[in-house]
Amino acid sequence: MKQIFLLLACLSIHQLSAQPAPGHDRDRRIQFPDIPGFQTLVCDFHMHTVFSDGYVWPRIRVQEAVKDGLDAISLTEHLEYQPKQADIPHEDRNRPYQVAEQNARAHDLLVINGSEITRDMPPGHNNAIFLEDANKLLVKDSVEVFREANRQGAFVFWNHPNWIAQTKDGVAKLTEMHEYLIQEGLLHGIEVVNEFTYSDEALQLALDHNLAIMGTSDVHGLIDWDYHVHEGGHRPVNLVFARERSIDSIKDALQKGRTVVWHNNQLIGKEQWLVPLIKSCLEIEKVQYMGAASVVQVFVKNNSDVEFVMMNESNFTLHNGTGLLQILPHATTKIEIKTLEILEYFDLKFRVLNAVTSPNENPFIQLQIKL
Amino acid sequence: MKQIFLLLACLSIHQLSAQPAPGHDRDRRIQFPDIPGFQTLVCDFHMHTVFSDGYVWPRIRVQEAVKDGLDAISLTEHLEYQPKQADIPHEDRNRPYQVAEQNARAHDLLVINGSEITRDMPPGHNNAIFLEDANKLLVKDSVEVFREANRQGAFVFWNHPNWIAQTKDGVAKLTEMHEYLIQEGLLHGIEVVNEFTYSDEALQLALDHNLAIMGTSDVHGLIDWDYHVHEGGHRPVNLVFARERSIDSIKDALQKGRTVVWHNNQLIGKEQWLVPLIKSCLEIEKVQYMGAASVVQVFVKNNSDVEFVMMNESNFTLHNGTGLLQILPHATTKIEIKTLEILEYFDLKFRVLNAVTSPNENPFIQLQIKL
Amino acid sequence: MKQIFLLLACLSIHQLSAQPAPGHDRDRRIQFPDIPGFQTLVCDFHMHTVFSDGYVWPRIRVQEAVKDGLDAISLTEHLEYQPKQADIPHEDRNRPYQVAEQNARAHDLLVINGSEITRDMPPGHNNAIFLEDANKLLVKDSVEVFREANRQGAFVFWNHPNWIAQTKDGVAKLTEMHEYLIQEGLLHGIEVVNEFTYSDEALQLALDHNLAIMGTSDVHGLIDWDYHVHEGGHRPVNLVFARERSIDSIKDALQKGRTVVWHNNQLIGKEQWLVPLIKSCLEIEKVQYMGAASVVQVFVKNNSDVEFVMMNESNFTLHNGTGLLQILPHATTKIEIKTLEILEYFDLKFRVLNAVTSPNENPFIQLQIKL
Amino acid sequence: MKQIFLLLACLSIHQLSAQPAPGHDRDRRIQFPDIPGFQTLVCDFHMHTVFSDGYVWPRIRVQEAVKDGLDAISLTEHLEYQPKQADIPHEDRNRPYQVAEQNARAHDLLVINGSEITRDMPPGHNNAIFLEDANKLLVKDSVEVFREANRQGAFVFWNHPNWIAQTKDGVAKLTEMHEYLIQEGLLHGIEVVNEFTYSDEALQLALDHNLAIMGTSDVHGLIDWDYHVHEGGHRPVNLVFARERSIDSIKDALQKGRTVVWHNNQLIGKEQWLVPLIKSCLEIEKVQYMGAASVVQVFVKNNSDVEFVMMNESNFTLHNGTGLLQILPHATTKIEIKTLEILEYFDLKFRVLNAVTSPNENPFIQLQIKL
Repeated sequence: MKQIFLLLACLSIHQLSAQPAPGHDRDRRIQFPDIPGFQTLVCDFHMHTVFSDGYVWPRIRVQEAVKDGLDAISLTEHLEYQPKQADIPHEDRNRPYQVAEQNARAHDLLVINGSEITRDMPPGHNNAIFLEDANKLLVKDSVEVFREANRQGAFVFWNHPNWIAQTKDGVAKLTEMHEYLIQEGLLHGIEVVNEFTYSDEALQLALDHNLAIMGTSDVHGLIDWDYHVHEGGHRPVNLVFARERSIDSIKDALQKGRTVVWHNNQLIGKEQWLVPLIKSCLEIEKVQYMGAASVVQVFVKNNSDVEFVMMNESNFTLHNGTGLLQILPHATTKIEIKTLEILEYFDLKFRVLNAVTSPNENPFIQLQIKL
Repeated sequence: MKQIFLLLACLSIHQLSAQPAPGHDRDRRIQFPDIPGFQTLVCDFHMHTVFSDGYVWPRIRVQEAVKDGLDAISLTEHLEYQPKQADIPHEDRNRPYQVAEQNARAHDLLVINGSEITRDMPPGHNNAIFLEDANKLLVKDSVEVFREANRQGAFVFWNHPNWIAQTKDGVAKLTEMHEYLIQEGLLHGIEVVNEFTYSDEALQLALDHNLAIMGTSDVHGLIDWDYHVHEGGHRPVNLVFARERSIDSIKDALQKGRTVVWHNNQLIGKEQWLVPLIKSCLEIEKVQYMGAASVVQVFVKNNSDVEFVMMNESNFTLHNGTGLLQILPHATTKIEIKTLEILEYFDLKFRVLNAVTSPNENPFIQLQIKL
Repeated sequence: MKQIFLLLACLSIHQLSAQPAPGHDRDRRIQFPDIPGFQTLVCDFHMHTVFSDGYVWPRIRVQEAVKDGLDAISLTEHLEYQPKQADIPHEDRNRPYQVAEQNARAHDLLVINGSEITRDMPPGHNNAIFLEDANKLLVKDSVEVFREANRQGAFVFWNHPNWIAQTKDGVAKLTEMHEYLIQEGLLHGIEVVNEFTYSDEALQLALDHNLAIMGTSDVHGLIDWDYHVHEGGHRPVNLVFARERSIDSIKDALQKGRTVVWHNNQLIGKEQWLVPLIKSCLEIEKVQYMGAASVVQVFVKNNSDVEFVMMNESNFTLHNGTGLLQILPHATTKIEIKTLEILEYFDLKFRVLNAVTSPNENPFIQLQIKL
Repeated sequence: MKQIFLLLACLSIHQLSAQPAPGHDRDRRIQFPDIPGFQTLVCDFHMHTVFSDGYVWPRIRVQEAVKDGLDAISLTEHLEYQPKQADIPHEDRNRPYQVAEQNARAHDLLVINGSEITRDMPPGHNNAIFLEDANKLLVKDSVEVFREANRQGAFVFWNHPNWIAQTKDGVAKLTEMHEYLIQEGLLHGIEVVNEFTYSDEALQLALDHNLAIMGTSDVHGLIDWDYHVHEGGHRPVNLVFARERSIDSIKDALQKGRTVVWHNNQLIGKEQWLVPLIKSCLEIEKVQYMGAASVVQVFVKNNSDVEFVMMNESNFTLHNGTGLLQILPHATTKIEIKTLEILEYFDLKFRVLNAVTSPNENPFIQLQIKL
């Protein structure tokens, strides 16, 4: 091409602004924008310390959460599995919560009292959070412990229903007991993501039974090591859409199922929450036609940690790539669209491939572009 | 989860081996594996120097190519556009080739004599490569120049048919003259990728008229700057599937359309070449079931520079993520598959989303896994 | 300069080989070469867990050590300071050692039983390592506890003699009790480096009283966070020159004072150990004169993690810089020396500025260069 | 140490603020603060293009300079060495200047007309900059060409007096002709740094004969490749202390010898300019005693690209390291000083080891610290 083209092309670099350097602590904070009507709170409701089978004092969990920019955590020690009992013979099962809560006071971090009900299948492992007194959950009967948690107003969710130690094929399936617990209103959520695993079948169960979609780190060792934070990794978190930044609001949001899970750069959630979240992440910064040509440049700013992987489903083809778009986090990406004629407004339409609203279903996003 | 799970989980980090650090020269070489029966040669057939409207001496183009690990280049100066004529009044249009060829002798780089036929539309700009004497292309008639190139045995391809300076809507369309040139066997390829642009319509033209699919940098300034090489970017290149590493073999491959284009982490090519290329990139390193569970871990080693973006289309769901897989370059990625029962062999099936075989069509890959 | 010079200059880049990328775990191992007659073992003899005032279970200390490539560690809980007693009421003070030793079995890491004798001044805090039974150190009398440690064959060293909580001016000074302990052979080493601090005065005390020079992390939280490991930092370690890689050999080496401390890219040690260590780190890889000129290129390969900062004290001036040389870790650096005439051999002489053998004294290194 | 110490220690990380990530273009700008009374301009007065034996069009030199944040450049083609004459037979030797000047208009870059007088020894190669007409320097007599340059008001400096192609031992020595030129006021500066080389002897000549201290890239290929810019390297530059940012002010500054050279992280200059420059680079940000202890923390902010290597020569020892200090660029470094008693003010004294004011002489810096 001649020089005249080169001048235009100079404006045409795909990725316009720089990404944060990998490995810098200041960037490890997990960052998502709010959505209309709600604050987006970043939470991890499943983790362990030396008070059950974890390897750190609660203070480290608080520090990890602060470094990760979390809004709320819950330490959820195994009630029935206490391998360090000989060294740490605590009788008060609220003790880890108390230690963490004390440590968190110097920081802007909410700590929620919780415990992991740890049983064989059924019902397997279940977390009860927002507890008043964890000790009262030391109840033998597997249903009765759910009743007690609910008496305390707890939010209860089924942990790793895909766990191969309890479900050999890794396929989450409701037992009769789970069906009963759901019917009785005693079980309110289900982990679709636990640690490094994800379950399509658990997502389907959440949708079929109106359970909150949960995702947690279930960390026992160190977040930094497990999730390669300094190479750009992140722990799984629950994004919770809350009226305000408080424990009560988080509980209300969970009870109403206002959650999205962020796991290994993938978003999982009900369409009604996932679509507004993605729309909040993607901000149209600038729109301009390229001179007299009917090719328009749309500059999209990504306000989140997600690297979006999207497939163009607009009526138009793109000028700077095939239909696949990779939108880097915290950067502005330019998309060039051949609109065939110069338009005053049109719709950008995408399928977001690293997000699911149900098994095999990726959310569809439509952004109106005005010139 | 209890500790027993943690031990399994420790093996479960998503990305197993480290990526090369960004910004290190030793890693900038563009690397692709060979495919059955052919060597995969990395080529750039469109670039400029001070001998037309570029800004470097040919030596820099050779050095850039060597740093990028290219197998072959062609300097393709504008025959009819010579803005530096007052300073560089060369009469021999083979001169840039001679200089580059002289410089390339110290390196393992093939240099091909070429020129850019630079006309208004039709026929626009077209590259003729494998020339014997570029001077003989200084012919007024726009068809006659194609005849002369073909008399010399040249391979001729249409440059940036989507160029908005010549096609306001950026949509590649054949003119009557192009149709004539194709019918007469005078035009053999078409740029589907030029510099920062891609054209779905040009791809369709290539398929409809059996033209070789071409992609080039068309660089005028510096490759490093234009393509942000030190931040992980790369120039567009033509992957050419040649019988051997020679100029003759490259010409033969181009004439037979054995090409794939690599542009901004996207692969574009005819299915018959793209599918074997992707299969060569992805090597099954290890397969093992997780203990007694019917979840199998498949370790896939990516032997290429491509970060593959793939959607699972197997009969099974995954244990460590939704269907979307991001397979990092030059690394081993673990995929965990829930096969429901322990199998002796099964098929992994994927749609590769950052590759296209025709507009809106991504190649389907099926890998047989044996235990 | 003309082109002929440019060709020479091309060979003249200062730093020839690439450094490992920051933030990659594989590079965090602390690496030093052996010295003639001895293995160089990397050790950290002062650290805490939840069994006194630290924040992790011993297993994390083992994992940190393995990641850092350490040869040996000792957990040294405070005998007299047990802030977690209410939660962890262990009566057996050997318990943290037992847990760590158990965890270390899967790794190639030596664990040494130790304790921190934790008193007001005098004698302040002192570590006793290679203990048989830590419980027997629960002795009230501050001298008697040293006698007991010595009865068990322990190696005992004074911790952070510069600690401002016990020494307001931060200046290490022997008390009468310390003098007595030294005279009696009950105190064998002194921390010249503790955590983030270094003490010139402690180094002088070590030299004056023939105490082993010690440097430790004294970590309570996480090594990764305290020492910014993912940005290239490292914990302070004792390099111990041992006959073989065993606990007995380490004890023997400590008793004989065969140590160097590595702290924040600075080396501290007695001349007899520091000079051979530096000489082992710096390997002459290649020597060549530049054509007919009397300028010689010496390629020095640095086999260690240290970035050496050296001042030229040779008889000759340098051709590629002032007298200051920065020799990057695990890389080859080229030094160009103007020898005035072409010589068959000569001496490179340097002062190593980021190493001290006594306060204000940097070691002098002489390397014979042969052509 | 007990927990009380840990809290203090947490404040004690050596390097407080993060460095820019390597490889990001936004950070490659060479940045130095102004000094009292003068602006610090960053200049490169020696480079080549295709108009002599370089390999780029002038436009690339302009772009490199803009990326490097330079204030002024001069293209200095060889008058008598024109290897590309067959291709580029320009008769007007001001032509490269004109092209560069034209290209620089879109940027905030000053372009100075210059030429390299290219002779055998004596007088070797000499640059004349601030020329009115380069053509008039095509004069046979080696002294007469200096007279012509001076008639035009040029500033003339001796290039690479250490060049081994003209001085086999690499030792810069004045010839009778150079002495004559200096006496006659026809030669005003001398390169102490050229490309990858430095000369102690040239520095001594500059001091003995009151010549301006010069340092240049003498680039023929690409700055990015020669100086490994994306791995943190930089080209040699002349820092010029000018009354204002104009060509006239630069000329005035050069004539008065107000220069410092920055080469491979080393600063070379006369004491009267080097000391104020270093003092401007180092800003005392905060000073505080550590509680009741007589150890003071001084936070030094480095406003420059230099990684300073300094040796403590204060009356006090340091609490967080030996006397050697490495002060990272564009970061704040904390220095802890044991002042023995709590003082209201005291002096920090350093020797800056990566700076020289004469061969073997490093500048001494004294900073008054007030509380």
